[in-house]
Amino acid sequence: MEEAVQRLLAGDRRTLSRLITLLEKGDLQAAGVLKSIDQHTGRAHVIGVTGPSGAGKSTIVDRLTDLARSQGQTVAIVGVDPTSPFSGGALLGDRIRMQRHYLDSGVFIRSVASRGQAGGLPRIVKAVIRLLDASGSDVILVETVGVGQSELAISDVADTVLLALVPESGDAIQALKAGVMEIADIFLVNKADRNGATQMAATVTGAMQLAPGQPDWVPPVLLTAAHSSQGIQDLWDKIQEHRDYLTSASLLAQRRAQRRRMEFLETVEDEMARRFREHVKRDPALITALTEVAEGKAEPFSAALRLLDSRRTQADWLTPLSTGPD
Amino acid sequence: MEEAVQRLLAGDRRTLSRLITLLEKGDLQAAGVLKSIDQHTGRAHVIGVTGPSGAGKSTIVDRLTDLARSQGQTVAIVGVDPTSPFSGGALLGDRIRMQRHYLDSGVFIRSVASRGQAGGLPRIVKAVIRLLDASGSDVILVETVGVGQSELAISDVADTVLLALVPESGDAIQALKAGVMEIADIFLVNKADRNGATQMAATVTGAMQLAPGQPDWVPPVLLTAAHSSQGIQDLWDKIQEHRDYLTSASLLAQRRAQRRRMEFLETVEDEMARRFREHVKRDPALITALTEVAEGKAEPFSAALRLLDSRRTQADWLTPLSTGPD
Repeated sequence: MEEAVQRLLAGDRRTLSRLITLLEKGDLQAAGVLKSIDQHTGRAHVIGVTGPSGAGKSTIVDRLTDLARSQGQTVAIVGVDPTSPFSGGALLGDRIRMQRHYLDSGVFIRSVASRGQAGGLPRIVKAVIRLLDASGSDVILVETVGVGQSELAISDVADTVLLALVPESGDAIQALKAGVMEIADIFLVNKADRNGATQMAATVTGAMQLAPGQPDWVPPVLLTAAHSSQGIQDLWDKIQEHRDYLTSASLLAQRRAQRRRMEFLETVEDEMARRFREHVKRDPALITALTEVAEGKAEPFSAALRLLDSRRTQADWLTPLSTGPD
Repeated sequence: MEEAVQRLLAGDRRTLSRLITLLEKGDLQAAGVLKSIDQHTGRAHVIGVTGPSGAGKSTIVDRLTDLARSQGQTVAIVGVDPTSPFSGGALLGDRIRMQRHYLDSGVFIRSVASRGQAGGLPRIVKAVIRLLDASGSDVILVETVGVGQSELAISDVADTVLLALVPESGDAIQALKAGVMEIADIFLVNKADRNGATQMAATVTGAMQLAPGQPDWVPPVLLTAAHSSQGIQDLWDKIQEHRDYLTSASLLAQRRAQRRRMEFLETVEDEMARRFREHVKRDPALITALTEVAEGKAEPFSAALRLLDSRRTQADWLTPLSTGPD
């Protein structure tokens, strides 16, 4: 894989694609590559774009890409596939984007699917971002589709989180209730040419004053109309301002350290589960336990705990630490 | 807990509430109770109601509850809290329902939240259903809010799955694309008083003929207007018909065995992850590993795999079975 690492660091897009596919497949060769490139990461600015469906996230990502490209920066776009049966918009947006930027070698576009993982961000997104970073992308735009927990999870991967809302929906109130406003570094009221935009911006601004917020960064509330590029330059300036703030306050390093910790923990958990599922197919004792559960001879929940406890001496971190009532 | 088990089996609602809370907290005492009541389960008919938001699922659940109650059956309603920052409708619907059925001791209503779990159905839903079953509920209605993977996960817990759609949205096409139609045992085109209802029903019926489907059950497509109770009696009859079909074809037992298997596997995985997270807080070697990852001395993904491999001899199911390239 050493050759692949060299090609990746040189910015080779086919190698990049191939490595992302390895990650998606859960191929353990990818771990070696990630290890080799780790020291070459940390340069890219990771910008998360989230919000409910219909807020114009794809268009915002598109306009930011144009702007970054006009300044000579390279851009990677990661679309997080929603895998919701009732929101199929992401793929379409992706195809349109693909067409626009197809001939521009300074733009790399990739969708990452959840593959059987329920909601949230696919866990490999963090690793994909590091591959993109090492391959020389200046700006990495991560777009999540507004379903499930992905809106909240975006703050686990992005340096700067943009939350896009639209005037007519009740999004602001919903977002307030659910605490999603706390993850936004910059608010956009997109489609600001519609009725109610300034009023909504005022509502959000008012709500911000009640929120705890970050010590020295009051999330700005911007009005944009991404379709006509209105407000996009201001947005871009604010994004740079936020990056400068993070760097000067040492918060960038803190956020990234926390992100690395999370990735480590999640990878252990994923891999434990994956290995367990493999063993279940072949280990006679596990097959017996599963059959007893299916046939009603054992109760699923308590049988699962019993199994873990029987292995207590073999894997100390499987020992429960809190067993009594709280 | 023996006393609690007896009270639960006698249908005591306060005990039921308290036990569900124990499950939500991850309290291991709940395992003992689940074990004791296991032989008293299997009588209830579990009906899942899913579909996009705005399809009128809460009203359908409400009308089915009225109908079951008028026949003297007891009903439990489990609302699965979406935990999506952008869909806060569930709680409101719950409150309205609560008011309507507050004085009826034959209706038990409970929302189950996902608590940090990303999307899908909260894993404890399966255990909650068994508690409700043992406590004597004749009908258990599980309503999921249309976000993330919960639409697909409903087939892991329900005997009969109702998929509610509404005429005007593009739901039918989305559902077709995403394969969610395959989980439906009964289709509803709700709000059938609106334009396009019969056309949509025809589209769904046509699509069904292309789908693989179940051997002897062609999912019927019903028109309902739940607000005015139109079509609810027909729906109820179809639900009974489906239950009879499942029983006569021995499919009910098969579905339930599969459900028990899944619950066992998921509980092992959840509990492994939970125990690991607890140990991470205290185990000096794990704390060191985490610090190295955070500080950039170790790369998260490969460090996670290395950790698991170092424990290989201690827990055999943590051994990877497929390590090479595929």
